[in-house]
This record gives sequence, structure tokens and C-alpha cells, in this order.
Amino acid sequence: MPESPKYQYENVKVQVFPDGVAHVELNRPKSLNSFNYGLIRDILAAFTDIDSDPRVRAIVLSGSGRMFTAGLDLKQGSSKNKISPDLDVARQAFARQAHLRWFQSSVSSLEKCSKPVIVAMHGGVIGAGVDLSTSGDIRYGTKDSYYCIKEVDVGLAADIGTLQRLPKVVGNASLIRELCYTSRNMYADEALQCGLISRIFDNKEQLIEGALKTAREIASKSPVAVVSTKKLLNYSRDHSVDEGLEYTAVWNGVMLGTEDIPKSVEAFLKKKPAVYANL
Amino acid sequence: MPESPKYQYENVKVQVFPDGVAHVELNRPKSLNSFNYGLIRDILAAFTDIDSDPRVRAIVLSGSGRMFTAGLDLKQGSSKNKISPDLDVARQAFARQAHLRWFQSSVSSLEKCSKPVIVAMHGGVIGAGVDLSTSGDIRYGTKDSYYCIKEVDVGLAADIGTLQRLPKVVGNASLIRELCYTSRNMYADEALQCGLISRIFDNKEQLIEGALKTAREIASKSPVAVVSTKKLLNYSRDHSVDEGLEYTAVWNGVMLGTEDIPKSVEAFLKKKPAVYANL
Amino acid sequence: MPESPKYQYENVKVQVFPDGVAHVELNRPKSLNSFNYGLIRDILAAFTDIDSDPRVRAIVLSGSGRMFTAGLDLKQGSSKNKISPDLDVARQAFARQAHLRWFQSSVSSLEKCSKPVIVAMHGGVIGAGVDLSTSGDIRYGTKDSYYCIKEVDVGLAADIGTLQRLPKVVGNASLIRELCYTSRNMYADEALQCGLISRIFDNKEQLIEGALKTAREIASKSPVAVVSTKKLLNYSRDHSVDEGLEYTAVWNGVMLGTEDIPKSVEAFLKKKPAVYANL
Amino acid sequence: MPESPKYQYENVKVQVFPDGVAHVELNRPKSLNSFNYGLIRDILAAFTDIDSDPRVRAIVLSGSGRMFTAGLDLKQGSSKNKISPDLDVARQAFARQAHLRWFQSSVSSLEKCSKPVIVAMHGGVIGAGVDLSTSGDIRYGTKDSYYCIKEVDVGLAADIGTLQRLPKVVGNASLIRELCYTSRNMYADEALQCGLISRIFDNKEQLIEGALKTAREIASKSPVAVVSTKKLLNYSRDHSVDEGLEYTAVWNGVMLGTEDIPKSVEAFLKKKPAVYANL
Amino acid sequence: MPESPKYQYENVKVQVFPDGVAHVELNRPKSLNSFNYGLIRDILAAFTDIDSDPRVRAIVLSGSGRMFTAGLDLKQGSSKNKISPDLDVARQAFARQAHLRWFQSSVSSLEKCSKPVIVAMHGGVIGAGVDLSTSGDIRYGTKDSYYCIKEVDVGLAADIGTLQRLPKVVGNASLIRELCYTSRNMYADEALQCGLISRIFDNKEQLIEGALKTAREIASKSPVAVVSTKKLLNYSRDHSVDEGLEYTAVWNGVMLGTEDIPKSVEAFLKKKPAVYANL
Amino acid sequence: MPESPKYQYENVKVQVFPDGVAHVELNRPKSLNSFNYGLIRDILAAFTDIDSDPRVRAIVLSGSGRMFTAGLDLKQGSSKNKISPDLDVARQAFARQAHLRWFQSSVSSLEKCSKPVIVAMHGGVIGAGVDLSTSGDIRYGTKDSYYCIKEVDVGLAADIGTLQRLPKVVGNASLIRELCYTSRNMYADEALQCGLISRIFDNKEQLIEGALKTAREIASKSPVAVVSTKKLLNYSRDHSVDEGLEYTAVWNGVMLGTEDIPKSVEAFLKKKPAVYANL
Repeated sequence: MPESPKYQYENVKVQVFPDGVAHVELNRPKSLNSFNYGLIRDILAAFTDIDSDPRVRAIVLSGSGRMFTAGLDLKQGSSKNKISPDLDVARQAFARQAHLRWFQSSVSSLEKCSKPVIVAMHGGVIGAGVDLSTSGDIRYGTKDSYYCIKEVDVGLAADIGTLQRLPKVVGNASLIRELCYTSRNMYADEALQCGLISRIFDNKEQLIEGALKTAREIASKSPVAVVSTKKLLNYSRDHSVDEGLEYTAVWNGVMLGTEDIPKSVEAFLKKKPAVYANL
Repeated sequence: MPESPKYQYENVKVQVFPDGVAHVELNRPKSLNSFNYGLIRDILAAFTDIDSDPRVRAIVLSGSGRMFTAGLDLKQGSSKNKISPDLDVARQAFARQAHLRWFQSSVSSLEKCSKPVIVAMHGGVIGAGVDLSTSGDIRYGTKDSYYCIKEVDVGLAADIGTLQRLPKVVGNASLIRELCYTSRNMYADEALQCGLISRIFDNKEQLIEGALKTAREIASKSPVAVVSTKKLLNYSRDHSVDEGLEYTAVWNGVMLGTEDIPKSVEAFLKKKPAVYANL
Repeated sequence: MPESPKYQYENVKVQVFPDGVAHVELNRPKSLNSFNYGLIRDILAAFTDIDSDPRVRAIVLSGSGRMFTAGLDLKQGSSKNKISPDLDVARQAFARQAHLRWFQSSVSSLEKCSKPVIVAMHGGVIGAGVDLSTSGDIRYGTKDSYYCIKEVDVGLAADIGTLQRLPKVVGNASLIRELCYTSRNMYADEALQCGLISRIFDNKEQLIEGALKTAREIASKSPVAVVSTKKLLNYSRDHSVDEGLEYTAVWNGVMLGTEDIPKSVEAFLKKKPAVYANL
Repeated sequence: MPESPKYQYENVKVQVFPDGVAHVELNRPKSLNSFNYGLIRDILAAFTDIDSDPRVRAIVLSGSGRMFTAGLDLKQGSSKNKISPDLDVARQAFARQAHLRWFQSSVSSLEKCSKPVIVAMHGGVIGAGVDLSTSGDIRYGTKDSYYCIKEVDVGLAADIGTLQRLPKVVGNASLIRELCYTSRNMYADEALQCGLISRIFDNKEQLIEGALKTAREIASKSPVAVVSTKKLLNYSRDHSVDEGLEYTAVWNGVMLGTEDIPKSVEAFLKKKPAVYANL
Repeated sequence: MPESPKYQYENVKVQVFPDGVAHVELNRPKSLNSFNYGLIRDILAAFTDIDSDPRVRAIVLSGSGRMFTAGLDLKQGSSKNKISPDLDVARQAFARQAHLRWFQSSVSSLEKCSKPVIVAMHGGVIGAGVDLSTSGDIRYGTKDSYYCIKEVDVGLAADIGTLQRLPKVVGNASLIRELCYTSRNMYADEALQCGLISRIFDNKEQLIEGALKTAREIASKSPVAVVSTKKLLNYSRDHSVDEGLEYTAVWNGVMLGTEDIPKSVEAFLKKKPAVYANL
Repeated sequence: MPESPKYQYENVKVQVFPDGVAHVELNRPKSLNSFNYGLIRDILAAFTDIDSDPRVRAIVLSGSGRMFTAGLDLKQGSSKNKISPDLDVARQAFARQAHLRWFQSSVSSLEKCSKPVIVAMHGGVIGAGVDLSTSGDIRYGTKDSYYCIKEVDVGLAADIGTLQRLPKVVGNASLIRELCYTSRNMYADEALQCGLISRIFDNKEQLIEGALKTAREIASKSPVAVVSTKKLLNYSRDHSVDEGLEYTAVWNGVMLGTEDIPKSVEAFLKKKPAVYANL
């Protein structure tokens, strides 16, 4: 068995609970959890570490301090090193592409992580915050939360996930495009109504408790079942129904042999919780 | 002209009405219409037979007895023959894949059937019931209906359609993933709100009457138009907009020559119902 | 710099305002803006012209007279020349395919236009009107607007966009299929609830004003950002998330070098509106 | 274990040898093995039966009499019942589509069959014969064999596989298109050179013996390995490299646990042939 | 019936023969048929005109003067107007994208043209010439022809077709990549061997006569059959086998009703050439 | 500028020459360069390092000792840790999938590396060696080289690239399938004929010199052009022609602004080699 990761990062705080839940916090409260090079690096590291930690079965992601995140850190930018404007334009493009792929990989690390991620949001969820949240599985918000696809206001198109994932997360193209083109705020009620978030809580405390409760519920289930479900949902989103079914037949062709099924059935009959081995 | 099918099955009851509507009932009420080998086989047979019966133009599917379905028959399982645990693991996998493809083909027979299927649900709609219902075209429910993606609770990922189709049926990824990971019940109001069902009825009697009324309405239209519409909706779901348009241009390149169009226009002008030939 | 188009069409009226907004009106009020050969031709011409006019940054599309549109002109049909029924059936099919591809290209000209299109609808939105509206970006309606996928009633499957785009615009497959198979009217409230439209206005006057206001808002933003956002949203709708991210990395690999970003940031800091060069 | 199929068909002859090889012969020599309704039906039946017969591990397909096949039976046509020319044109199209899908499924039954198919051809391989042969895995021919994509000469485009599969079987688009547009004969040497066939034999006797030898060789290998290889080759042909690798990882995630691997290694070390259980 | 096009272009010469063959010549011999703005524009115009001319059923494309083409006109470039280097980098990128899409559409007009195009090449076939030739259907060359993917030598990646089409035209990835990375010449023998061209002629005169002969042969066949064959080959190249078969079933669901089939059969029986109506 | 990698690995030897060429050698000659855990790890590391080293512009890969590679190390296997057979079958499958994805990523590192890779092979190229070679760009072999898709002989389907890439590298499906199902050796002549390798050398010395010469040729070209060409070839292989062209238009929308183009043109006119900056 591999050693557990240390979970020590500069801009992200991770707690792992004995019940199989990890709580990840964006932890740059003084800068409103805005995305600089360090935060992007640490999100990627944390979710990569958690992905390979068999003890963790469900994750809650929230922001410390006043809000979930103010989006990009406009002062520092997202890069470690500035790209020199004197560089040949093609070479600048190669450098920017490389940077964007790395930034995207950090945001996508929630989706690539094999375990469900519940994103619990309070206050502002701005720019890169919306990109990040749509890479999670479940989104909860507080009454005072608001959501802003800020990128157009800063002169660019969102490029780390919102334009790709939001329309597959929310079934209302007219509303989404209005939000994307105008950068207007969407408040919690409208976010619930359109399905960006699926639950509203009165305040941050209740939000975190609610998210942890759902996470504990998920962590108590068979990890074979949960991890397979996330994998198949992700796969099916990007494929036709028939492709999804074919992949699933191959996947479950082996997974249905798991000991977790008889364990689950026995637990159900005996009305006692099942205990499942880690993956 | 082919002979009409006999519509005699052990676990499924089929009535064909003169107005072109077929009513299919899951008919294992003592076992709460749970899915065993026989029910899966008979669903496949019934929808295959109906598909080739030119008299039928729209279908209502409901469950007899206390609920729509309790999901998988945990006692009997879904297989005719158990796969021996002594078998080589690769050979077990081949056998399970074959079984899953067959089970999937039964559930998918609603979607592959060229005529619209209205799924009318009361009471519990559990596990395989959700898979089945999302393979239909239109979903109605009673006030007391509830929906449960039960598979994770039994130690497996849903593998016969829910994970593939539900996210393409309902535009709320956060809610869907919560339901899939936690196996919690969703009640009729939430199901209507998120769009899993598009209408609620007070009780089963009204549900069936409402579903039959919609089915009769559909059955009164041009079958060329209705069957083409279903085909093109299914195709377009799984393709880009441009691919969908190209396929449609080829399809309607011939269908626009149909006699049903002048018939429809004439009926509209004369305000008398048109009578369309069977396909 | 190219000369501005003349914007003179027989069946479509176009006004271009100094704030970068174009207002396009379907302009066959005596025929209820029904689609004949001339209207289809002029929609295609108008949106092609606008697409290449760098002064225009956002578009409002509405209908003059009593309603948005009554759909296909049943008397004149959509073709310039009738296809002779004496022609060989294969040659008829080639001719119909060619006609359909041309009709589709007119409807799709809203989507292919690089600038956002807000469709503002009052009264009836029937048949081809629904196809047309789903090709736009944002849909607003009046309280008295209603929507009808009329094609099945006329003996055909919708073939110029509704079946391809509507399910990607609205996340409620059960409702959509009911509408497509039955041709029933959907009224403004239900259209708002399901997300076909994202805002309701009391009357046509307020509708147009509201739509123009959103358009002006969009036109005030960086055109690099807005045009890129539309391009990436369209691309991502038809591709997997990973494909969408890869394309975006290449796209923004150059666009992030734009002068509009420092301009936007400076404007934000100085709290003065930025002025962006045309594309 | 299921009973063995009877392998009795009117137009196809099947022999199953104890070494796991099945020899299938097109058996309408008086009609030059031309494709009529009965032959199409029997090919489908034979390959479906063989697919489910665990004793069979490799297949040789050849033609009895003077040539492999003269293509479509121009006198009888491929349908059981003629489609009435008085029928509505849309209804004719539905009927023809259904017929074509059935005809395609017969030709595709070679590809869908889980075991490798070696097509051994002598004399004329005309029209539907080319379609059929490209659905197999390996193609061998006699010195006097010739290949003709005859369809254009009869006024139609090939519709049961040649246009879909030939360009994925042979890497020479210029040559393929010349053959498809002109219906000219291609003789054995050119067929070998371009890779339509991968081996030439002097006469039919040697052809059959050579094909059976390769088939026996294949039948002696692990069926887990062979069947998996065919499945993955088929899948990868129709997907990107990355999609193919992902599917393969899931597939072999279980297949690598097979007993056939240690058996193979042991046999190699002991220099004795391994005996593998049927699938 | 539409009027025939005038076929008057500055840089391209078109002759239409009574037998249904059009001969298109690149006609800037003094500049070695190098690609400037005018040539690109005229290729697009010529193939668009031919596509809509029902008299034309097959096309030969060749180059006048010393060679097929020297590739890009390095002096004039391919644009009408230079893009100012002072322009914002994002706006430069939009302008270049627009130019490239237009250039690509000219090269792709051979592929989009519904009738087969035989590219007959002598002398040098350099840079854009290879792009152009792979967009045709059939490629013939003279003994002295040579082929050079020149783009890397000029500091760019080929962007108008070679990198997209060549690997789907020639089944030898190792050779193709060597040619693309090194810009070395490939001579006629190697081009024949790898399948870039499918026939070699001794000199230009024989080349043109040979190409015209194949074109006449094609033009004598049913245009329903030939145009359908090109359409289905193009479609199938870019889709999986199953997608190709499905599209084909819909396509031929109507085309099999054509009068050209009985005409062809009758002609075959009577051994007299059939006369087919134009499309 | 990043520091150069150290290029120190246990099982792989890397030399970087001043002319921009890297020579990578599989370096387990005593074990015939067979694939164990360490070799797989080191291939991945070496190509990842080279990918990020701007000095390197082209790569030659060869094997030290008697042959290119004997394939999988049957004694040690490819894993660091054996998967316990006592583990739950689902958990074994997860572990095997993870291992396979890692192994695949090592083989794919040649393809993902942005610079061209020339694979120079002598003696046996067995099992994983064929997988590895098809992930490179150009393949050269000695007269005595032979190629063997060994996997079926060991009881498994090839799962790290051969089945996915070989059919896209060689346009001869019949031959490929024969090789895959029978595990027979293919010798240099046949490999040249079918295009697996594109050049034969008399002996290893000449092979390495020939490969280095091609690599030096490539390294002398514009790295913007070469890296873009590889990227676009890889992209186009896995997409339709139209998708490939669209991606290319976006890509070259910026790359055509590079300084390497005027440099190349100037060098051509002055007949002096251009010197290009690193990427």
C-alpha cells in the first residue's frame, strides 16, 4: 500500500477525515482566493494526491474567508514567468498554449479525480471560480452566493472550462449565453432554478455541514460502485448513448464480479451497514 | 402485409387499440414488476413486435399493481444461468459482457422502436425502472411516484442506460450526480421541476388516461411525420448540429414527397381529420 | 476597410445603430412573416452581410406586425421553382436535398454569424420560427408569445433545425418530445420555465427595448472576447469537453495577446468605459 | 453449454472441423453464387450461428463452383417481396431502408462475428462479392481471381459495405476511386500489390488449403487473445488512437487475468502446444 | 433548367465537351501556375460553376506550360490585401483565419464538387499543388512528374489540405511523415508505388489523353450512381463503418428507385449503351 | 530559459548533439532490451525530458546490442509490484487498468513528444517493440530486421498501441490482421513493401547513420514549421478532413506570423542556410 500523501500546500488546505471524506479549501483568503500561479499549482497537486489516496472516497471543496473566489488574480496573473512581448509571435503562442494546457489541467483535476467532488460555494464565485465549479460533480451554494462569468469583461473568452462544461451542466442555453456575453451576476435563486447549483443553504456553516453530510453518505457506499459511476457519467457525457452502453458493458463485464455486491445485498438484508475495502 | 404479432408474453401485457395505440404493462405485480430474466426477455420481445406492427403508431408503457417497478429482482437476478465462479476470469467477463449487451438491448428496445413511447409511472420507479424510463420518449408520473437510482446501494454502477441517457434527458448535472451517487429518492415534484417527468397526475387512473390521450393524439398524425421525427431526434442527440442537419437533408430529401403532406394540408383547409395509410 | 453593406432586402428590414447594434426584422407582416422563398433568401443575405460588417457587434432579431412568424408559407412554399412530380424519383431527391441544404443554411446563418443574436419574439412563433429562434444565441418573449413545433401537423418532420438544436437548447427531453410529436402550443410561462426563452416582457415594446438593451451591453464589450466566446460555445456544444479545451488552448494561445485585455483592465481600474477597435 | 447449431442452410454449406475451423461455402454454383434473398438470409444465419458456437475459433469463407460470386442476382433481386411502385414514395423509402439494413447486416455478420474470417476467392469477385470480402479479416485469392466493383454499371452506388470498408482496407485512394467509378476489373496481381488480398495461390485447391492452414494456425492460439484482438482491431479502426487505447485498457484490465497467459508461457517454455478452454 | 456558366476566368481555362467531360487547366504558365490570389479565386469559381452544371459528369484537372504548379507564388503571396503588422495580434489572427478558410475552401472545392475529379500532373507538383491534388478523386502523373511537400522549407506547416488528406489517400505513414518533415522530392515511381498516383504516362500528351479517357468512361455511366458513389466515399472516409452504412441506407432508400437502374439492366441485356438523363 | 535535463537513466541512453538531434537508445542489451518496469519508466522519462528541451529538434530511437527489442520481459513482467490474486476481482481490474494506462503513456510518449521521432530498428522487433515503433513518426530498418506482433502467442491482445496504430500506419488490413492473429514474423522486404518501414539499410551502422542524417535534415528546418506539422498530422489522423482543416486554420492563424517565414524566404533567395531560434 502506498504511503498517504502529506497534503501540505501553500494555497490550499486539505483535511482527511476517518470517514473517507476529504475537505479541500482554497486558502488565499487575503487575496479572496484569487487564482495566481501558486493556487493553480496547488489545486492540481491536491486533487492528484487525493486521487491516489485510497482512503479518500468523497471530497468537499470550499473557499476560506469572504468568498469562494474572486477569479483570476489580476495583479499577479496566472503565470510563473511573463512571456516576453519581444518574442516571435509564433513562439509566444506556443508558450501561451503550454500555459493554458497546464491551467486547464489544474481545473480539470476535479473531473479527472476518480472520486466525487462536491463544490460548496459562498459569496462571490467569479471568473475562474465558475470554471472550477463546473469541473466538480455536485454544486451547493449559500443564499448569498452569486456567480459571474467575468472573462468577457476583462477582454477574453473563458478558456479553462466554463464555455466547455457549463452548457453540459445546465440545460438552458439562452440563459447561459446571456451570462457569458454580458458578465452579469447570477444570484443563488436563479442558479438553483437553472440547475447550476442543486441546493441552497442559509449560511456558510450550514453549507459546509450539508456538503460534508452528502460526502459522508457517498463515502459510506461501495467505492467500486461510486468510482465506476463517476467514470461512466464522465464517459457518457462525451459520447453517444450507444458508445456509452458499449463501454459500460466492457467495464461492468468485470466489475459485476466484485465482492461489494454480495456485501451490499447482505447488509441490506441484515440492515447493517456494509464495510467495503478501499480501492 | 405481415401478420399481426400475437402479443402473448408471460411477464408483459400488451393491448392494441383500434386507434393505433398500444398499451404495454409490466406484469409481474406480485414481484413488484422486478426485473428477472423473463421480464427482460418479454420487454425486448414486445417492443420488437410492436415496432414491426404497422397498425401501432404510439405506445403507453405502465406497470401493473402497486408500483411501476422495484428494479432488479434481487432473488432471481437478471440471468437465465448463473456464471460459474470457477470459470477463468476472462471467460466470466465475456459471459457477463454478453449478458449485459442483451439486457441493454431490452431496455434500448423502447428507443429503437420507431414509434413514440410514453412511460406512465406510479409508485416506486427504482433502479432498472429509471434506466427503462429514460429509454422512452415522454415520461409522466403520479403525485405519489418516486424515482431512485438504486444501483450504487447494491454495489454497482448502473449499466443499462441511466448513466448514459439521464444526463441527456435532464439538464441539471449537479442534481443527477447527487442522485446517482447517493441513491436517494426523488419525489414527483422534484422530478417535474428538473424535467425527468413532464406532467404529474393525481392518481394512476388519471395517469393512464392522460398518457393514452397523448398517445391517441400522436397516433392521429401522419406516421411518416411522427416516425421521422423520432428517428431524427434520436440521431441528433448523438451527433453535432451540422451532422444532424446533413442527415436530415438526406432523410427529408425523399420524405417530403409523401402523400401525407397534401393530405394534411387539405385536411387543415377542410377542417376534417386526415386519414393516413400505415407505414 | 470594406464598404458597409447596403442592407436593402425585400422581406427583411435591417437597421444598424451607432452603438454597434443591428436590428433585423422579418418584414412580411401581411403574410404574418411566413417563410417563402424570398424571406429565406433575405435572412441568409442579411446575416451574411452583418457577419462581415465590422461595425456590428450584436444583433436583435424580431418580427414586424402581428406575430413573430406563422411558419412556412403554405401557399407559396419555400422553393423558387416547384420540382416536377414527373421527374425520376432520384433526381427529385437530389433537387430536394439541394433545396433543404439551402434552407438550412439560411436558418443556420444566425449561428454561423460571428456576433451574438438575440431573438425577440411576440405572438405566434410557429414551425420554421422555432427552427430559426434556436439558431440564435439568446431568446426573449412577450407574455402573449406562444411556440408551436407545427411540422408534424403538416405531415413532415422538422428539417431546418428544431430537432437538431432544441434538445441542446432546453434540458427537458420529455417535454421537447411531447411538443414535437403533438404540435401543441407552448405558452410563454412554460417556455420560460423550461428555458426556451430566458426572459418574459409585458409587451412587444418592452421586449424590443429589453433586447436592444442586452445587445448594447454586449456591443460595449471587447469584440475579441465576445466573438471568441460565441465561437467557443458553438464549438464546445458539438465536441467532448477535452476536445473543446484543446481547441480553446490553441484559440486563446493567440487571442490572449490582444490589446483589449490591458485596455479592459485599465478601464476597470480607472472606472471609465474602454473603447475597443473593430475586428 | 449450449447445443451446437445444426448448420443446415439452403444456399450456404458449413463444415466444422475438430481443430476449431469452420469452412463456409457460398453454395449456389448454378447461379454463380449470385446474391438472392435466400443467400443473403443464409449468410446471416450461418455467421450468427458460428459466432455463438464456442467450438469454432477461425473461419474460411469460399465459393463453390466456377467463381466466388457473380454479385447480385439480377433476375431475382435481393428482396423477398417486391416493393410496389404504386406505394407512396415515403413508404417505399421506409421499405427500402429496412431491406438495406437487413442486407447490410448479413454482409456485416462477418465483421460482427467474434472470430477471424479468412475469405478465399477464386474467379470472379463481383459487386456484392467485394462488399462481402471487405467485411472479412484476411483475403486470399487465386491467380485467376479478379475483382469488380460493379454497382455503378448497374446504376447505383454500392450500399452494403464496399464504399465504407474498402478505403479502410486498402491504402490507395486514387486506385479505389478509379475502380469504384469505372467498374473496371482488377486482376490478382494488382489486388495483391494494393493489398486488397494479401496472398496469391496458383489454383483453388491450393487456395483452400492455404486458407485452412492459416485458420488452423489461428485456431490453435488462445481464444481469449484472438477474439480480443479482433474486437480491438474493429474498435480501433473506427476511433481515434486515444479512444482505442482507453477502451483497450478497460478491456485488458480484466483479460490479463486469464489462465491462458500462464498456459501460453508454460507451453512456450516446455515447447509443447497449449490447450485452451473454449470461450 | 439553369443557364450554363460562362466558364471565363483569368487564371483557369475550362473546356466542356459534349461527352460530359470538363477539362480544367491551371493557366498561369509564365508563373509556373503558382498560387496567387487570382488563381485561388478562379479555382473556387470554376469548380463551383462546374458543380452546378448538369451537363458535366466528370472532370480532368491539369496544368498548362512547364509543370503542374510551382506552389505558392512567393512574390505575390495568396492574399488580396496584406495584413498590417501594426494591427493588434488578435485582429491579425482573425484576418489570417478568414483568409485561410477561404484558401481552404478553394482547394476543397474539388472534393465538394459532386462529380469525380481526375488530377493529371506533369513536371513539378510543389507545395499547394500536393494539397490541391489530394482533394481530387484520382491522380495520374507523367514519368517526369515529382511531388514536393514544400511548406516546411518555407517556415510553415501545410495548411490547406496535405496534412489532412494525404494520410487518408496513401497508406504509408512513415513515408508521408518523412516527406512532410524534410520537403524532399518524391519522383513518379515512388509516387506510384505508395499510391499517391495510380497511373504513370510517358508524357503529358498521353497523360491528358489517358485522363480524358477515364473521365469519358465515368461520364458514360449513370450520374445518379456516380454522384452517389462520390458522396458516399467522402462521407465514409470521415465516419465509422457503421455510421457510413446507416447514412448509405437512408441515401439509397430513395436512390434505388431511380430509372437509371432498369435502364442500365436493359442496356446490359441489349448490349447497347444506356442514355441517362442529367441530374 | 529552463535548465537542460540531465538525461541520466538506468535503461535508456540519451545523447544530444549540437545540431539539435537527440539519439535515444534502449539500453538493456543483456536482456535484449526487453520491457521491464525500469525500461518503461525510463522511456517515458526520456521522451518527456526531450519534449521540454528546446535544443532538441529531432530524435533517433534505436536499440543497443543484438536486436531492437525482444518485447516484454517475460521473467520480470512490466509491473513494479505484482497484483495479488487474492484481491477482489474488481480491485484487480482497477489496478491493471492503472498499470496499462501508465504503460500506454510510456509508449505514447513518442507520439506526444512534439518533435519527430525516427525509429531505427535492427534484428528482432518483437511484441512491445512493434507497439513502440508505431508511436514514432518514421521507421527505418536493417536488412536483417524482422517484426513480430507476438502478443497472441502469449495469450493476450496487444494493448499498448499496435492494434490502435498499425492499421493507421500501414494501408493493408488483410496483411495486418494475418500478422496480428498468427504472430508470424514479417521480414524487412515485406515490411518495406507494406510500408511499416520506409527505408532499408544494409547493416546497423548504416541504419544509424541514415537515421541521424534524416534527423539532422529535419533539425535544420524551422522548428515552428516542424513542430506544427507533427501536431497537425497527429490531429488530422484522428479527425475528419473538415475538422482537421478547421483546427489548422486556427493554428496557422497565428503561426503564419512567425519570423521563420521571412527568414526562410530570405535564406532561399540568398542560398544560405537560415538559423532559427529555438521554440
